[in-house]
Amino acid sequence: MDNFTFYAPTYFDFGRGAEAHVAELVRRFGGSRVLLHYGGGSIKKSGLYDRVKSVLSEAGLFAAELGGVKPNPRSGLVYEGIELCRKENIDFILAVGGGSTIDSSKAIAAGSLYDGDFLDFYHGKAKIERALPIGTILTIAAAGSEGSPNTVITDEATLLKKGTKSDVLRPKFSILNPELTCTLPAYQTAAGATDMIAHVCERYFSNTEETEITDRLCEAVMKTVIYEAPRAIREPDNYEARANLMWAGMLAHNNSCGVGRVQDWASHHIEHELSALYDVTHGAGLAVIMPKWMRYVLEINPDKCVLFATRVWDIPLNEENPRETALAGIEAFEAFLREIGMPSSFAEIGARAEDIPLMADKLLGGRKTEGNYVKLKRDDVIKIYENAL
Amino acid sequence: MDNFTFYAPTYFDFGRGAEAHVAELVRRFGGSRVLLHYGGGSIKKSGLYDRVKSVLSEAGLFAAELGGVKPNPRSGLVYEGIELCRKENIDFILAVGGGSTIDSSKAIAAGSLYDGDFLDFYHGKAKIERALPIGTILTIAAAGSEGSPNTVITDEATLLKKGTKSDVLRPKFSILNPELTCTLPAYQTAAGATDMIAHVCERYFSNTEETEITDRLCEAVMKTVIYEAPRAIREPDNYEARANLMWAGMLAHNNSCGVGRVQDWASHHIEHELSALYDVTHGAGLAVIMPKWMRYVLEINPDKCVLFATRVWDIPLNEENPRETALAGIEAFEAFLREIGMPSSFAEIGARAEDIPLMADKLLGGRKTEGNYVKLKRDDVIKIYENAL
Repeated sequence: MDNFTFYAPTYFDFGRGAEAHVAELVRRFGGSRVLLHYGGGSIKKSGLYDRVKSVLSEAGLFAAELGGVKPNPRSGLVYEGIELCRKENIDFILAVGGGSTIDSSKAIAAGSLYDGDFLDFYHGKAKIERALPIGTILTIAAAGSEGSPNTVITDEATLLKKGTKSDVLRPKFSILNPELTCTLPAYQTAAGATDMIAHVCERYFSNTEETEITDRLCEAVMKTVIYEAPRAIREPDNYEARANLMWAGMLAHNNSCGVGRVQDWASHHIEHELSALYDVTHGAGLAVIMPKWMRYVLEINPDKCVLFATRVWDIPLNEENPRETALAGIEAFEAFLREIGMPSSFAEIGARAEDIPLMADKLLGGRKTEGNYVKLKRDDVIKIYENAL
Repeated sequence: MDNFTFYAPTYFDFGRGAEAHVAELVRRFGGSRVLLHYGGGSIKKSGLYDRVKSVLSEAGLFAAELGGVKPNPRSGLVYEGIELCRKENIDFILAVGGGSTIDSSKAIAAGSLYDGDFLDFYHGKAKIERALPIGTILTIAAAGSEGSPNTVITDEATLLKKGTKSDVLRPKFSILNPELTCTLPAYQTAAGATDMIAHVCERYFSNTEETEITDRLCEAVMKTVIYEAPRAIREPDNYEARANLMWAGMLAHNNSCGVGRVQDWASHHIEHELSALYDVTHGAGLAVIMPKWMRYVLEINPDKCVLFATRVWDIPLNEENPRETALAGIEAFEAFLREIGMPSSFAEIGARAEDIPLMADKLLGGRKTEGNYVKLKRDDVIKIYENAL
């Protein structure tokens, strides 16, 4: 196990009706002038928007608002949010929505207290030292941004999808009411579950030795998602399935599964190029890429693939041919993704073979390799894309 | 899953040499006048005491000190600590030691800012609203106090061992260097591991339905302890075994395994009477009580006992006779406790049959039942003690 630090000071309020506590939580964490940041019409249709507005206003909290966050959130709206925060002297950002809305809020929170271009943080030109406090009301169990220090934004000028992180971006509070996710369509539920498994796999596939505790935690979260996602898709109103998925999604990305080990993140970065070019749902893109990445690395570094098969998919270990065991695990993962309705090829997500060299170049951005479990060169990345055609 | 809140804002600095960061962390969390609280000679023998003193003094931090914490920490030393804090205007308490030292520090931290008798908190007469900030340097992987809101103190006047908790008692930071635990004797290592498993079992054995994610997390922590504890006992200097145990011990009690479910805690309370009367090592007392409790509740409420057997001990499910499966799980647990050198009876820990009625009365303290997985009446508690003779 490697040395690490872990600091996850988000206050979670989990359960039915928890959004009723939002004003009290904003005040507890020092907010008085709130930017209410959200996506499209779904929170208006569900009545959540009205409930939140009225709780804030009854508590005497000022609320400016900025809607319109899109999946794969864009830099343009972040600039608007920063301007609005400055104009209205905002001291707290409340994100109501899924990972895109929370990631956009984090960008606004850091950008508002920075004199330069907020994209400096995402292009590695500056480090986030300060940010406005953030709270969230989560409506999609997927990205884990409600408990993570991470944010991903698409630079509209270049269509580069870039991430950054800082402990100051961890939300002060996150309200997780599983009821709010019951209206989520099957496809988005499945894409969310895929994203959760991918967040865990990026940590699980590691060459760091002697990581029993975090291996086991990774497996716990993956097994939960594998059990609960099909239930939530079959029975959208199943509160218990939604609740277990929602908490698993937070754990998948708050790094409790990833401390003390070198992480990979190649699949995420390979997928980011698909999302940036074709505006693919992130989880759906991961469903296409992740198993192809596994099949590719299996031939080079099989150990963790074998563990993934035996412990996560309950494949009996074939001691004479562990590669067969590992392959059966990947096949079980692929079957699971098919079962929940996820795509498995470029054709299904509208991606094009001719863009592969461009995506590989954008992904590497001058670096020699991508990922850690296996260090992938440009040729390897291209082969993984090609295997997904 | 039940509604819950979860707030665990402790900063963990984990790994080799992490204690070198102690002064920087004290300052980060607002300390300038420190009470250094510790137990006996072991931190002096190991050189840790000198290292900590010199780091604090080089950083220009004032440090008063109070040693002498004993296992099953007593109220007398807490009163001394409170007086010292007031006299020296202490603004930060640094606990260097195991769970007893940290629990004693938490009592001092809350008591220093309270006008009444600090034991009011432990006897349920007052609620902890404020406390001095605490930091810890952990030297024993066991109690989980380094990441928990809990504290247990023995009232010297009555020999009642009582617990209380508050999120304000969670340490601001905890330094976890597994190297510091390599000198721990086999018996204490085993007692610590037993305590960890017990902390998880108190949460695992629950009647709350649909708790897949926390069930799986509980199993992950238990499986890790079951794998690593015998390794740490066989090879005391095995850093990796110590590291996995140390992080598992924190997770076993910071409540990440226990959110959203009704917890039990009968075994802990039944054991506390043993520790209070005979000053038994807490983990050793738990090794005596917990399997007896399991055998007793199995006959009334078998479901979770079956899951414990199949998932934690890999016992194949006997569908025609799940009780047999559950029993095999408890036997596996008992064999594990024997293997790591833990006692299994009153005789081995110097406890006496004639004290059983007294212990049962003290335990219930006027309440009708104890525990939740099965609500134990006085007769049930007496039978569990008797089964441990």
